[in-house]
Amino acid sequence: MEQRLSFITLAVADPDKSKRFYVDGLGWEPAGYEPGEVLFLPVADRVVLSLWSRSGFEEEVGQTMTGPGFVPITLAHNVATTGEVDEVLETAIAAGATLHAAAAEREWGGYSGYFRDLDDYCWEIAYNPGEIGRSVLPD
Amino acid sequence: MEQRLSFITLAVADPDKSKRFYVDGLGWEPAGYEPGEVLFLPVADRVVLSLWSRSGFEEEVGQTMTGPGFVPITLAHNVATTGEVDEVLETAIAAGATLHAAAAEREWGGYSGYFRDLDDYCWEIAYNPGEIGRSVLPD
Repeated sequence: MEQRLSFITLAVADPDKSKRFYVDGLGWEPAGYEPGEVLFLPVADRVVLSLWSRSGFEEEVGQTMTGPGFVPITLAHNVATTGEVDEVLETAIAAGATLHAAAAEREWGGYSGYFRDLDDYCWEIAYNPGEIGRSVLPD
Repeated sequence: MEQRLSFITLAVADPDKSKRFYVDGLGWEPAGYEPGEVLFLPVADRVVLSLWSRSGFEEEVGQTMTGPGFVPITLAHNVATTGEVDEVLETAIAAGATLHAAAAEREWGGYSGYFRDLDDYCWEIAYNPGEIGRSVLPD
């Protein structure tokens, strides 16, 4: 099995609502959209974030967990400066996201904050000055 | 906020156990590893899969959900043929994964099956002949 990821799929209440946040709010461009079913957003070279209706997801994958607590995964968007962390968090919140954890210095040596999208999936906006952090930044 | 993802982080019981599956079992190469804390696996250009100890994750992100049911996300590894779907599923299971759903023709026009890693995160091994599926394949 080659070391690569092609899709990250999140079960969502309504892909139309996801579209309002990611496309209308953040200005991201979909690679495909089927109302009520699925929204595809390219998020890296050969990697697509897929927002799939929970009903379709459960039919294929199985019953999903519900609360209390948060889904045990996060998505991160890394940036090159602490100032950009603050700016991107503001942009996401203006687009309808909820602040989950205010930006702060982190134990691992960086600076990050978290927002939740409309389905409560957590995105971390991070400045990571270490090697692994630099490895993910755009040129 | 640029349209890009840098890290996918999964809370895991023990990154050492994750290492046994992904590194020792599948032969993937880590970009970083701190025993008991975190394992970093590059999975696309500028994208890293991070397996973070649940205790560290919860301290920074918050209390996570537990069952019943599955975490409402999947990771997909796309391949170019149906035969490779079967082969990769066999490889993952030989490395210690659990078969979650046998490979089958899917409503969306492809062929896929699912395994669960040692923390019950679902990976889909998929052949998707559509445009979105072709867009994620290696050259």
